[in-house]
Amino acid sequence: MNQTKKDYHSSENGKTVLAANIAEPFRKEIRETISSQYIERPPKLVGILSNNDYGARKYAEWTKRACAADGITYEMREVPKHKIEEVLEEANQDPEVSGIMIYYPVFGNTPSFYGTSMDDYLRDTICPTKDVEGLCYTYRNKLYRNQRFLDTEKQNKCVLPCTPLACVKVLEYLDEYDNSNVTGNRLNGRIITVINRSEIVGRPLAAMLANDGADVYSIDIDTVYLMRRGQLLETTDTPETCVRKSNIVITGVPTKEYRLPTDWIAPNTTVINVSSFKNIDETTLMKVPGIKYVPLVGKVTVAMLERNLLRLHKNYSTFQ
Amino acid sequence: MNQTKKDYHSSENGKTVLAANIAEPFRKEIRETISSQYIERPPKLVGILSNNDYGARKYAEWTKRACAADGITYEMREVPKHKIEEVLEEANQDPEVSGIMIYYPVFGNTPSFYGTSMDDYLRDTICPTKDVEGLCYTYRNKLYRNQRFLDTEKQNKCVLPCTPLACVKVLEYLDEYDNSNVTGNRLNGRIITVINRSEIVGRPLAAMLANDGADVYSIDIDTVYLMRRGQLLETTDTPETCVRKSNIVITGVPTKEYRLPTDWIAPNTTVINVSSFKNIDETTLMKVPGIKYVPLVGKVTVAMLERNLLRLHKNYSTFQ
Repeated sequence: MNQTKKDYHSSENGKTVLAANIAEPFRKEIRETISSQYIERPPKLVGILSNNDYGARKYAEWTKRACAADGITYEMREVPKHKIEEVLEEANQDPEVSGIMIYYPVFGNTPSFYGTSMDDYLRDTICPTKDVEGLCYTYRNKLYRNQRFLDTEKQNKCVLPCTPLACVKVLEYLDEYDNSNVTGNRLNGRIITVINRSEIVGRPLAAMLANDGADVYSIDIDTVYLMRRGQLLETTDTPETCVRKSNIVITGVPTKEYRLPTDWIAPNTTVINVSSFKNIDETTLMKVPGIKYVPLVGKVTVAMLERNLLRLHKNYSTFQ
Repeated sequence: MNQTKKDYHSSENGKTVLAANIAEPFRKEIRETISSQYIERPPKLVGILSNNDYGARKYAEWTKRACAADGITYEMREVPKHKIEEVLEEANQDPEVSGIMIYYPVFGNTPSFYGTSMDDYLRDTICPTKDVEGLCYTYRNKLYRNQRFLDTEKQNKCVLPCTPLACVKVLEYLDEYDNSNVTGNRLNGRIITVINRSEIVGRPLAAMLANDGADVYSIDIDTVYLMRRGQLLETTDTPETCVRKSNIVITGVPTKEYRLPTDWIAPNTTVINVSSFKNIDETTLMKVPGIKYVPLVGKVTVAMLERNLLRLHKNYSTFQ
């Protein structure tokens, strides 16, 4: 696989790969599409913000800046929590809005006293035809069954969740996908570990990689499963044995404290950190021979958000 | 309101009301309906169990016993966790199955590393036409909008979640509903506090009581809202000020440690504990004048489960 033209930042044995470089060609394509096709009314994305969470505001600002640069109309709607369902419903109904996203947490990062939280409910209440993040139940259900279209006529492709999709694009950029195989088999023979099995990041990501042919070890707080083409299989592997045999390791643990032991990581592994916290000690990781390391995927995530918006705008907008 | 005929267990000033007495007339009606209408093929409920959780097994045993006594076919399917989606899909498709319930936790009581958990996903994957617990997204969405039918022709009434519905039946039994008002206004003027705002118990319960006309204070770990006819309103009230002015207090905190301070509770309040833990010190509660106290609602919950099953069987079964 030819990677000589790729723009890496080398340090000792490992190479660090910057998300901005991976995102740029996608954003260029988006800019060109918008400027050539949607001159009169560019697609409009509404972001709904109901908190003072630093990370959420940061993400909102990034999104705003990226949209402005790429010709997308972005409107931030700041609302008190108790009004959010009303504002969401309004945006769901508004024909001028092509995409909606909510910045979480709204009612709480921690779940309620038990069970499903109001934030989960909100996530499922964004209309699938406007769900730029692709995280509502409808899309997750389709993804887990490897059904790629929303409609039975197979006109409208499903939206894929942005962060998992960003990981796929990162892996394509790093030539982990074998383009000599047909779609669905391009990760055949690859072993991948994904640490996180939330419905937001880890499980959809594992499902996408397994749909593309990989054997994916899905690790959560107290369980390890093997995902293979939509099947969830039992395994006697531990996090350590999974990581040791993986060609690709993706970490998404949303805590400051978590560190993946670098001595588990085999030479020539590709490591992606999708958490906003550093899940791995970068200095020791860089000493492992042949490592490719992507410390952050946020910029690719925003590019995928824009891409999803364009798809929704094209498929469903009455104001094209 | 005439309560002289009701079967209370008195202790000092308070009265304890037993769920079995409240459940019995519902179960009698169910038995009669089944024996008169469904002789050849009684409705069939499938319970899916994938854990060794004591509470879940206990609930499964209760359900099995109640179904056997009332003429319902109950089938328990014990499956390893990684097979549960397959088994669920099979039951969703099986025309001989009228109702399905899953015993939680399956993948984990605690959520995943973050966000929505696989258990939440399972909950939403039960087909609405078989969802005896009424907890899938579709029914919650209808409930929060006070839409009482699943179909636009208004033929098929929505299923209401069992534990919240059990609380409504308890309150009706205790004459808290004013039957001289029309449906939707029978709790007018009542102030109710619900401690728990999960999508499984507290929020649907608060929504149902607000849909019936009450002012409902909905309390979760760090927030208090006032629910009034589908509106979520801000309030400066604290848990203490809410409880002090409430005619009815319902606690659903799923921890051993939590205790609602009994000195907050006004004389003549009705107190319901829906948690499997005792959320209140019963000895001091019973000293508050005129208290009506329901320590457990599980038996009414099971009766509501049977009732929901009959509705689903009647509306959707091809084997009636």
